[in-house]
Amino acid sequence: MTEVKILKDILEVNDVIADQNAKLFKDKGITVFNVMSSPGAGKTSLTIKTIEAAKADGIDLAVIEGDIASAIDAERIQETGVKAIQINTGGACHLDANMIRSALKHLDLDKLNALIIENVGNLVCPAEFKLGETYRIMLFSVTEGDDKPHKYPLMFTEADALVINKMDLLANTNFDMDHFRKTVLSMNPDLEIFEVSCTQGMGLDKWSTYFKSHIKNA
Amino acid sequence: MTEVKILKDILEVNDVIADQNAKLFKDKGITVFNVMSSPGAGKTSLTIKTIEAAKADGIDLAVIEGDIASAIDAERIQETGVKAIQINTGGACHLDANMIRSALKHLDLDKLNALIIENVGNLVCPAEFKLGETYRIMLFSVTEGDDKPHKYPLMFTEADALVINKMDLLANTNFDMDHFRKTVLSMNPDLEIFEVSCTQGMGLDKWSTYFKSHIKNA
Repeated sequence: MTEVKILKDILEVNDVIADQNAKLFKDKGITVFNVMSSPGAGKTSLTIKTIEAAKADGIDLAVIEGDIASAIDAERIQETGVKAIQINTGGACHLDANMIRSALKHLDLDKLNALIIENVGNLVCPAEFKLGETYRIMLFSVTEGDDKPHKYPLMFTEADALVINKMDLLANTNFDMDHFRKTVLSMNPDLEIFEVSCTQGMGLDKWSTYFKSHIKNA
Repeated sequence: MTEVKILKDILEVNDVIADQNAKLFKDKGITVFNVMSSPGAGKTSLTIKTIEAAKADGIDLAVIEGDIASAIDAERIQETGVKAIQINTGGACHLDANMIRSALKHLDLDKLNALIIENVGNLVCPAEFKLGETYRIMLFSVTEGDDKPHKYPLMFTEADALVINKMDLLANTNFDMDHFRKTVLSMNPDLEIFEVSCTQGMGLDKWSTYFKSHIKNA
């Protein structure tokens, strides 16, 4: 009970800061995508592919990378020429609104159309903490199994778009795509779903079109 | 800062209960394995294979299943004839010692040699919360990527054994096994490592031998 009460307090404080972040993003005309998934689902790979498509259209964007430790992902992003701010949570299993507020000091917000926030790899807590984002993008790989919506419902329910990655491995798994799609759509009827393989370049055009069409001031 | 302080308090309370659980397990002669991994790495599949090997040797065991929601995993375990207690954390991203203490009321501890606890699928928080277990088993699948030890170091550092699953998919990924093994062994030199495929039945003999040889009163 104590733990639940404490969590409630933390979430309320977080929501206040998230609303302040959201107002700042709106004032500056920046569309913000909060990308969430399990570890290893391919968030950084998808972010890099998305950057490539966005840059080709002249969209100015930046990336905030969340990890427990290391700067591996930010270094991968910087290779694309896009600025990436690494947040190391030092143990916390999710980003929170205050971490984002601190990271924003290192970005020139007047020059950005879009910001991609790559959350800590975790199918649970990131969905509980609003960051002030415009859209919540969930990434999920077929190797994680088609039973996960039942076991980790919140993120599937809260996402605006679901990108299903590692489609090139689908035939090597017992993942039932029809069952999976029906389950997630029963939980979240407005969810936009994309099937991709970041390593093989499959299905990324449709995803990139969605991403770019949702940026307000590009 | 406040959040860090609160987490510290929660962990201290948890440690007290975990020590009580550990004493109870020792008094009853029960060896307890806390199995941790990302979502979808194959914890339930490994547990079922382990149960089959243990039952063939006359080991009496039970399973505690941790999930945010649903009883899918406990139902899969019950099909093996072994008793499974489902804990639904209702949002919490890890099991804690108090949840285990509550679940133990539903088991006949005098009849058990071993207990497998399947934690919530999460590469972060489960490693922070002791449950009173005898051994910490980390499961990891090659589809998660070989960079994860750097990004999620705690679980790799704290594990007694690491079971690398989905070896049948290794050739379809860019996972560098030599690099991965060197990294985790540099962080945790005493770590026992097993390479398996639960779906294809590869490498499970060695793992089962390890598991059975670590049960004290079988």
